[in-house]
Amino acid sequence: MVNPFFMNMQLYYHPDLSIDTFDLTEEESVHLKVLRLQIDEQISITDGKGTLAIVAIEQNKRKQWTVRVLKREYTNAPMYSIELAISPLKNNERIEWLLEKATEMGITAFTLLPCSRSERKTVNEERLRKVMISAAKQSQHLHFPELRVVKTFSDYITEKTEAEKCIAFCGANTKSIHDCIAVGKPLRILIGPEGDFTEEEVALALQHGYLSVGLGESRLRSETAGLYAVAAYKFLNRL
Amino acid sequence: MVNPFFMNMQLYYHPDLSIDTFDLTEEESVHLKVLRLQIDEQISITDGKGTLAIVAIEQNKRKQWTVRVLKREYTNAPMYSIELAISPLKNNERIEWLLEKATEMGITAFTLLPCSRSERKTVNEERLRKVMISAAKQSQHLHFPELRVVKTFSDYITEKTEAEKCIAFCGANTKSIHDCIAVGKPLRILIGPEGDFTEEEVALALQHGYLSVGLGESRLRSETAGLYAVAAYKFLNRL
Repeated sequence: MVNPFFMNMQLYYHPDLSIDTFDLTEEESVHLKVLRLQIDEQISITDGKGTLAIVAIEQNKRKQWTVRVLKREYTNAPMYSIELAISPLKNNERIEWLLEKATEMGITAFTLLPCSRSERKTVNEERLRKVMISAAKQSQHLHFPELRVVKTFSDYITEKTEAEKCIAFCGANTKSIHDCIAVGKPLRILIGPEGDFTEEEVALALQHGYLSVGLGESRLRSETAGLYAVAAYKFLNRL
Repeated sequence: MVNPFFMNMQLYYHPDLSIDTFDLTEEESVHLKVLRLQIDEQISITDGKGTLAIVAIEQNKRKQWTVRVLKREYTNAPMYSIELAISPLKNNERIEWLLEKATEMGITAFTLLPCSRSERKTVNEERLRKVMISAAKQSQHLHFPELRVVKTFSDYITEKTEAEKCIAFCGANTKSIHDCIAVGKPLRILIGPEGDFTEEEVALALQHGYLSVGLGESRLRSETAGLYAVAAYKFLNRL
């Protein structure tokens, strides 16, 4: 995922890089305006779906920056897969922080999962998407994580997936995370709200093939638990 | 470190538990007032140095809460040791987040290390201490991490320590973190500011026995790099 021709360069985002000349989004235009970039200067842009383009600036009006593609390169999606599903949290900043950090560490999917004890049931998806894009650019990822907001716990739990499925909670009879994640194996891990999953939620997950996982001796906040699981996966898979 | 007699109980902090009857700090008194605790109710208090006391409330005046120790228990310090040393960051909130999360994950020492490229040279140590104490209570640690603010990079780098010493930076010729941390071995790891360490700083560290470490393919922000190192240590040592 690290490519010498944009190392140490700022990476920009545009959802569609298939056209040869196009206007940047207002958000990216603002960045370029602050940097006072000039006509013909080159920047690197990704679509978050594997394409990296080198473009030249053709027009730099106030809010309308037009660029022309000089070169495109495609990078395959990562071979690994880690999806973190977490309840919305009372303090929304904690979810934003987790999404930023998990994106930097290379998570492939991030799911907001409403639970019985979630103190907040909804999230601002638009805002979360901005946090994710910003972190992915910062870390120079060309494949951005999938961001999902699901409607109900049971819809999600009954979904079919190739991944090893784990539900982390503070209870007895959990396996160590070391016995649940394996090198090269896709992982989906669920983290509950501040008050944890209910017994019914855990039972439903176990019925559908989830493993119950503990995250060690310390009592971790939800967002810390989520990031620890992502970091453990990154470490184990040497990402 | 998990003890059944305070599991699921709120943990409070008092710096000295050697006296039998004492006044709580104003901060803890405020918490108890909010919870409307009554005379003779029992709470758990730690001194952050291994002692856990069960105390009964003797007096609950507005800002003066007096308690009487019923029972004391001492827990040995953890067998492991991980010290994270990081530059102050431009955005102070990022250091506070890191300290909170690293404390939850069981870090044993956290050091603020001014570097050549640190955009901020000083920190509010008092405020950081509050963040650390709050996170340690939340995670029910009876041994709180040591919090240090050092004066100069070179003083710190020349210190003697039993730990494996690592300096993480974005450069060529770094070892993987997998080859630098080992089960049961104390670790000290250094993370630079937003603009990274200077070549001179890296050279000085290498001269003094530090290993140069890379943290994988993603470009991580300083605080994410720090937390990833702590999480990797926790995972490897099954803490």
